[in-house]
Amino acid sequence: MRGVSRIAATYRIRADARAIAERAKAIAVEQSVEMPVQAIDDARVLAEIVGRVEDIQDLGDGSFAVRVGLAVATTGPEPGQLLNMLFGNSSIHDDVTLEDAALPPEILAAFGGPRQGIAGLRARCGAPGGTGARAMTCSALKPQGLGPEALARLAGRLAEGGIDFIKDDHGLADQAYSPFAERVRAVTREVAAANRRTGARTRYAPSLSGTLDQMRAQIRAARAAGVDTLLIAPMIAGVATFHALVREFPDMAYLAHPALAGASRIAPPLLIGTLFRLLGADATVFPNHGGRFGYSPATCLKIAEAARGALGPLKPCAPVPAGGMTRDRVGEMLDFYGSDVVLLIGGGLLAARDELTQEAAAFQREVASFARA
Amino acid sequence: MRGVSRIAATYRIRADARAIAERAKAIAVEQSVEMPVQAIDDARVLAEIVGRVEDIQDLGDGSFAVRVGLAVATTGPEPGQLLNMLFGNSSIHDDVTLEDAALPPEILAAFGGPRQGIAGLRARCGAPGGTGARAMTCSALKPQGLGPEALARLAGRLAEGGIDFIKDDHGLADQAYSPFAERVRAVTREVAAANRRTGARTRYAPSLSGTLDQMRAQIRAARAAGVDTLLIAPMIAGVATFHALVREFPDMAYLAHPALAGASRIAPPLLIGTLFRLLGADATVFPNHGGRFGYSPATCLKIAEAARGALGPLKPCAPVPAGGMTRDRVGEMLDFYGSDVVLLIGGGLLAARDELTQEAAAFQREVASFARA
Repeated sequence: MRGVSRIAATYRIRADARAIAERAKAIAVEQSVEMPVQAIDDARVLAEIVGRVEDIQDLGDGSFAVRVGLAVATTGPEPGQLLNMLFGNSSIHDDVTLEDAALPPEILAAFGGPRQGIAGLRARCGAPGGTGARAMTCSALKPQGLGPEALARLAGRLAEGGIDFIKDDHGLADQAYSPFAERVRAVTREVAAANRRTGARTRYAPSLSGTLDQMRAQIRAARAAGVDTLLIAPMIAGVATFHALVREFPDMAYLAHPALAGASRIAPPLLIGTLFRLLGADATVFPNHGGRFGYSPATCLKIAEAARGALGPLKPCAPVPAGGMTRDRVGEMLDFYGSDVVLLIGGGLLAARDELTQEAAAFQREVASFARA
Repeated sequence: MRGVSRIAATYRIRADARAIAERAKAIAVEQSVEMPVQAIDDARVLAEIVGRVEDIQDLGDGSFAVRVGLAVATTGPEPGQLLNMLFGNSSIHDDVTLEDAALPPEILAAFGGPRQGIAGLRARCGAPGGTGARAMTCSALKPQGLGPEALARLAGRLAEGGIDFIKDDHGLADQAYSPFAERVRAVTREVAAANRRTGARTRYAPSLSGTLDQMRAQIRAARAAGVDTLLIAPMIAGVATFHALVREFPDMAYLAHPALAGASRIAPPLLIGTLFRLLGADATVFPNHGGRFGYSPATCLKIAEAARGALGPLKPCAPVPAGGMTRDRVGEMLDFYGSDVVLLIGGGLLAARDELTQEAAAFQREVASFARA
């Protein structure tokens, strides 16, 4: 139908060749009107709302790539409803995965993507872009269970080493043993002191948790302490909550964490790359290949491309490969990802214990030494 | 460690026998401190916070059931953080699923479960419990794309047939073609008119979408129109948002929808049954076996048991088998689930088109005729 804007969603469906046309139609219906089409008598609904099978491709491995056009109008546009229309009910089919979604300009404009983007992250920590660009670095405060002062001491030592971003472990929430507000005050104090000594501009990114209201209060407390970068797990927070914060606090940079995102049978480049970026992630953490998790190099490159490649007018989002990384992989990772990346080493630095500052400084130096000529 | 309250989480891990002890330990670490344990020198963290492997059982199919004790203190208690600690990072391992979680009394008390429970649902629609108990019925307003008045006419005809609960299709949000507030006014008007004519007590459950703030506004508008039952998809809304609403509007009954929940590699009885109930679902919709989705009869029974079986002081949550059900399955479903159930037929009734009221009435009569002697 001319004039109807659609998202082209691609599903991978395990099926045999005789059944695939029927399956494809069923998915198109499931993800739109969710009822027998022959029972619909509204002409506009039939023409504009019912999902439309646009292409079926045999992938030659017992599965098919099915492209379905889903009406933009059904998504609101609202972040939860976007996810609902893309994969709500079909997520329950264990032979269907959501592989890709081509987002039309209205969707990009409605959500707007990263407010800071990679350039904004560079500006925060003073890492040059363009000629002489270097990758950025990140580490994490762990283990949970430590109190605010102990975490603040770790942060001070990492900052002393010059790390660009120090994020809370995603397990740090607002627990009794480390209340958010107290932790933020203690950590920012130590990071600021280290910055004064070193002249560096290390940023602390505390982890948000709870409801929209609780997160708002956390952001206000963090901002009062000088924080301008935050960590959030969109699939735990809820995508609507995440995006509401991006709109309400557009001066903040948001680092997205993939917790629970791996549980989805949505292709990681789409969910962790494109969709988190669409909703406003300035950087997105994902498990690098060869670490504790099983993503392949190809998947990792696709995530990086989805995060920072061209996507209409949206700013690029920094890929943050992580999950068991160590210093000896810095060169290889920079070769692989280039300089528009944030390298995250958490436990691998903390394992240095008494040598934490030196280890952090060595990590920072190594990354800087790979600056683009 | 005596005195430390733990959640016993059971993961199913594909691994070979030589590797499983190491894998089990790695999961216990991933879901707690997420860093090399040898780099932790805080005795309390080691004793009380680090996850503890409690049992490893060979399932004989190339996988192992690994029970891990996770400290309750790490969860907040906060709904998102509970999910995060149960499965946040491990969701990214495609050879790990979360199978079960034994929730200690503090967790049950902290979240509190259904506020109405099955008895509260029965009271709403006037379906007797105890001796003479009958199952409840539900249908859905579809297709999305119709305007408020067209949906209201459908609702009026379903109500005329005496259906207990009429829910919005989970695809109905706050779209331009059917704004929430307008839809609720139109549908409640028609349902109330039908109730006056029939003497029945059909309830309309509109579907919530958007942020916590948007959902609050939706609930206020719905309550003003006489609504006392709501539909929400916790995995799309975010579990924290869902639970915040349960606390703020404890007089409402909440019908949980499984959209996006099937995407998780969390066993459905745990997520859709136990966890949704824990957070306050009074009824939980799931795909019945033999419909459009692939859950087995055994999985469906386990979901029903998790939803309504004994769980500390928590009220039972009504199982709502759905997903392509038809009238000819009523007897079989009631034999299978008993009378503490809500039978949901959506498209299967709507397909009757001009005979919708008669079809709804026949569905209602059939269910009532199976009342417990």
